[in-house]
Amino acid sequence: MTETADFLPVPEEPSGWLSTADLGRVRRQVPILYVDAVPVRVDPNGRVTEIGLLLRANPGGAIWRALVSGRVHYGEQIRDALLRHLEKDLGPMALPRIPASPQPFTVAEYFPTPGVTAYHDPRQHAVSLAYVVPIDGDCQPQQSALDLAWITPEEATSEQVQLDMLGGQGMLLRQALAHVGRLV
Amino acid sequence: MTETADFLPVPEEPSGWLSTADLGRVRRQVPILYVDAVPVRVDPNGRVTEIGLLLRANPGGAIWRALVSGRVHYGEQIRDALLRHLEKDLGPMALPRIPASPQPFTVAEYFPTPGVTAYHDPRQHAVSLAYVVPIDGDCQPQQSALDLAWITPEEATSEQVQLDMLGGQGMLLRQALAHVGRLV
Amino acid sequence: MTETADFLPVPEEPSGWLSTADLGRVRRQVPILYVDAVPVRVDPNGRVTEIGLLLRANPGGAIWRALVSGRVHYGEQIRDALLRHLEKDLGPMALPRIPASPQPFTVAEYFPTPGVTAYHDPRQHAVSLAYVVPIDGDCQPQQSALDLAWITPEEATSEQVQLDMLGGQGMLLRQALAHVGRLV
Amino acid sequence: MTETADFLPVPEEPSGWLSTADLGRVRRQVPILYVDAVPVRVDPNGRVTEIGLLLRANPGGAIWRALVSGRVHYGEQIRDALLRHLEKDLGPMALPRIPASPQPFTVAEYFPTPGVTAYHDPRQHAVSLAYVVPIDGDCQPQQSALDLAWITPEEATSEQVQLDMLGGQGMLLRQALAHVGRLV
Repeated sequence: MTETADFLPVPEEPSGWLSTADLGRVRRQVPILYVDAVPVRVDPNGRVTEIGLLLRANPGGAIWRALVSGRVHYGEQIRDALLRHLEKDLGPMALPRIPASPQPFTVAEYFPTPGVTAYHDPRQHAVSLAYVVPIDGDCQPQQSALDLAWITPEEATSEQVQLDMLGGQGMLLRQALAHVGRLV
Repeated sequence: MTETADFLPVPEEPSGWLSTADLGRVRRQVPILYVDAVPVRVDPNGRVTEIGLLLRANPGGAIWRALVSGRVHYGEQIRDALLRHLEKDLGPMALPRIPASPQPFTVAEYFPTPGVTAYHDPRQHAVSLAYVVPIDGDCQPQQSALDLAWITPEEATSEQVQLDMLGGQGMLLRQALAHVGRLV
Repeated sequence: MTETADFLPVPEEPSGWLSTADLGRVRRQVPILYVDAVPVRVDPNGRVTEIGLLLRANPGGAIWRALVSGRVHYGEQIRDALLRHLEKDLGPMALPRIPASPQPFTVAEYFPTPGVTAYHDPRQHAVSLAYVVPIDGDCQPQQSALDLAWITPEEATSEQVQLDMLGGQGMLLRQALAHVGRLV
Repeated sequence: MTETADFLPVPEEPSGWLSTADLGRVRRQVPILYVDAVPVRVDPNGRVTEIGLLLRANPGGAIWRALVSGRVHYGEQIRDALLRHLEKDLGPMALPRIPASPQPFTVAEYFPTPGVTAYHDPRQHAVSLAYVVPIDGDCQPQQSALDLAWITPEEATSEQVQLDMLGGQGMLLRQALAHVGRLV
């Protein structure tokens, strides 16, 4: 549940954005609303054939795989937040298919204390609406992402990939596969 | 819940098809599995902007509006049945976006006796899995359909359009609008 | 989307609660996470027979009908927030059946500016996960609620009841009825 | 996907039932509509704590674990079929909580040819609407079931239990656990 924006200079007066100090305080006061998107490739009949995972790294050299994930801003609709984060991480030519319905396939509750739920985010209590999003276009990983890898449902549930995902996103990915009938 | 195929000559040995006599007998013995598709236009953020309704007529001159609807064949997967019926009714260039998940937004139970549920089909007890399907391409109504009209959510819930729909499809359409957050 | 707690004295250092000043500031900075519960009576086959609506009033004498609705606290799981708000509004003997799945039937996005979506909350940008909750026990409306009325699906969609509901909760109620197959 | 009724003497003219010969013929002509129920115990906050699995045996001495599963009859509503099969397998005191919404958590497509989907039924092409059903009462396994065992989500996903389930029901069980947020 890494949000690139947290590590970037913040524009002067952006709509819906907070200063680092304000965001830090709010994060100790209320649950923070997130969206998680599982990017997928589908065939013409809608069957999921591949899942797109970001490869991320931090300055310390740690590397992990991640879903597209990010905060919903004040005044922003969920579908607009989904589109913003997908374009931010996959590039402007990704052509994501935002779902017509706001009903998420699940709600992931990330707690700062590990073990409360299957999801964990040391920075905050985040509640994330999770959606499967078919991607039609060409992806160009942006900003802090090193790469975007398209893998099969079988690979996605492999021990290696599951170990490469943090904060419960491996389980969220398996829940997405269960939802689309591709859990292995 | 009109299925064009019922009124057409049946090919000799089609996979999954039945003779008229066999279909008639089966219809008195088990619930018949259907799919209902609500064709929609969406904007880049996934918001439903328009709903596509077929204009149908029978030899007696009756005219009504209809969703895309039809039977699932023996040996056919639901997503393949959805694609087949959408291409049959909207033409080969419609480019429907079949959902990645098999979870329908509702299940419509059509009974031969009116009033058992909100859905009614005088021919049979049909159980229909209902999906909202974004349409990307150009539609060319086929076969028994006179026209395909794209209308707004407001028009779709108007008394006139609701009266033009049969067998409870008006309610199914309103359920679809509720599901995508566009019920008026 | 009235939250009784907002009008009551706040305990000194309650887990997850905020002072009025802090809550006011947070409400201008991030979307606030809510839950909406539609209390229903069901028959042994799970069919919804009645919907429970609260009758609320404010000091100015205005009266309206409301769903059970309230904020999710920092550190609180969604199902615990649902139970807390249901017990707060319906009393300790209501025996609500909290859903086993976190998947809401819809997500209602309340904006402080009317007209952005169908939902409106002048106090804040609230994002509410909405659930249908069967109630098994005896309800005793609490605190600011004058009464709890059990009405039929037909009554719930009547113009009078719809006019008595505020902020888009009338539409949310109709979406709940669509979800359970009882939209009229 | 064993249906006890198939191995029992059939009453003379039961509503919705078919003779063995008629059922055999219909099974080669159309997909047969089924329901699958995953019986669960929940705590007061709705969290799934245990899953109920039937222990079944056939005359040849084979033993396996199974969900509650069965055919929807002609003229029968889905919720009535769910209740009938749950009472048939778990006994009259099980007090199952049939869901208020007809929306299943998934649709399992069982094909007579293995490998088409993850589900397999050698007798037929069956399409099954799958629901999680909390059980409040005391269960007394009936008829062909030897036992009903309540196991934890962890045990349900163990290799041993998964190997004891047939026709893809192990995967359906894991999909149910994913849906309720208890996949391990």
